[in-house]
Amino acid sequence: MTHMTIHYPNGGAYQHHAASTPHAHTTMYGGRGMTLEDELNGSNRYYLQTGRAVVHKKPTPIQIVKVDYPQRSKAVIREGYFKTPSTTDYNGIYHGYYLDFEAKETKNKASFPLKNFHQHQVDHMRACLQQDGICFVVMRFVRLERLFVYPATPLIAAWDAQAHGGRKSITLATIERDGFELTPKIQPRIPYLDGVDWLISQKVGAPRG
Amino acid sequence: MTHMTIHYPNGGAYQHHAASTPHAHTTMYGGRGMTLEDELNGSNRYYLQTGRAVVHKKPTPIQIVKVDYPQRSKAVIREGYFKTPSTTDYNGIYHGYYLDFEAKETKNKASFPLKNFHQHQVDHMRACLQQDGICFVVMRFVRLERLFVYPATPLIAAWDAQAHGGRKSITLATIERDGFELTPKIQPRIPYLDGVDWLISQKVGAPRG
Repeated sequence: MTHMTIHYPNGGAYQHHAASTPHAHTTMYGGRGMTLEDELNGSNRYYLQTGRAVVHKKPTPIQIVKVDYPQRSKAVIREGYFKTPSTTDYNGIYHGYYLDFEAKETKNKASFPLKNFHQHQVDHMRACLQQDGICFVVMRFVRLERLFVYPATPLIAAWDAQAHGGRKSITLATIERDGFELTPKIQPRIPYLDGVDWLISQKVGAPRG
Repeated sequence: MTHMTIHYPNGGAYQHHAASTPHAHTTMYGGRGMTLEDELNGSNRYYLQTGRAVVHKKPTPIQIVKVDYPQRSKAVIREGYFKTPSTTDYNGIYHGYYLDFEAKETKNKASFPLKNFHQHQVDHMRACLQQDGICFVVMRFVRLERLFVYPATPLIAAWDAQAHGGRKSITLATIERDGFELTPKIQPRIPYLDGVDWLISQKVGAPRG
């Protein structure tokens, strides 16, 4: 098992991707196995190196309980626990715009299940939208090999509707209609800034700070 | 010892503040000991709850090597190591502006030592400035009980000058001249958005995205 699920005190589940090991949701490019997280980290490095944007994945929050300090060697954490994050996984800046996003994938072919998201992620995206941030999800349909930038606004609407008895997933047709489909490249593998440019083009005239 | 220094593989030093325990640099308010990090986290919570801004401290990056999964209990990290961060500690969004900052304190009374900063922090602030972010340092002179928002631009200039034989600290007089002094409040304890408003007022007319 290369894909571990940590259950938070609050009952939420957190998918931890062992960074270098391929796992269940791995997609193959040229025979190499990479996770969505690996591909986004590589894309972020590319964007940073080329001066396009400064975006980083946030570290997994860990509650450190016990640390050893061996002689002449670096500190070792001997007891730690995964904490519930209070934000999405990725944020940064692109040409003056604050970017904030989550990356999710599904094996489904017809719709994207909302159970892939957690309340804290939705709450955080809502708060960032209120501050005029560019908030979205990078969604991958693994088996369809299709990638989308899906805006936070319709995602939050679907999340809220679900809480009132609405459907528990977003149909592919809806994602095709309200999202922006990404065309994977060699560099960057996930050119999500193409979707960000599309989001920004829809904001024209919106207040900026 | 309530204040641990981890030495990175690259030789840099990282100050880890045990979140809930008061330590060497603790300042006292009403008899309660709080670290600069504690106070900033509280200020960020206040700004979030009041809808002023969405700013979070980034978790400390940990390389997880070994995790135990006890029956009927949550995952325990049994071996982990501190990694060198690639960014500053704090970022977020305020009224459409990307904020990025580091928090540092000194016991000195006449100047702020540049050794409080690390190359990766300076590199990151430089990259964020190039993307038109609002980048700064919250500086505390512990013994003077004075707090400043000091812009990244003069900080980076001092850092670069040091590399070419310039002085190893920034004088208080320079910080008073080029920075914005914060007046601590009850809520938020560190009203750094006052300094951000000052920084933004100096950017008027600058390109926005």
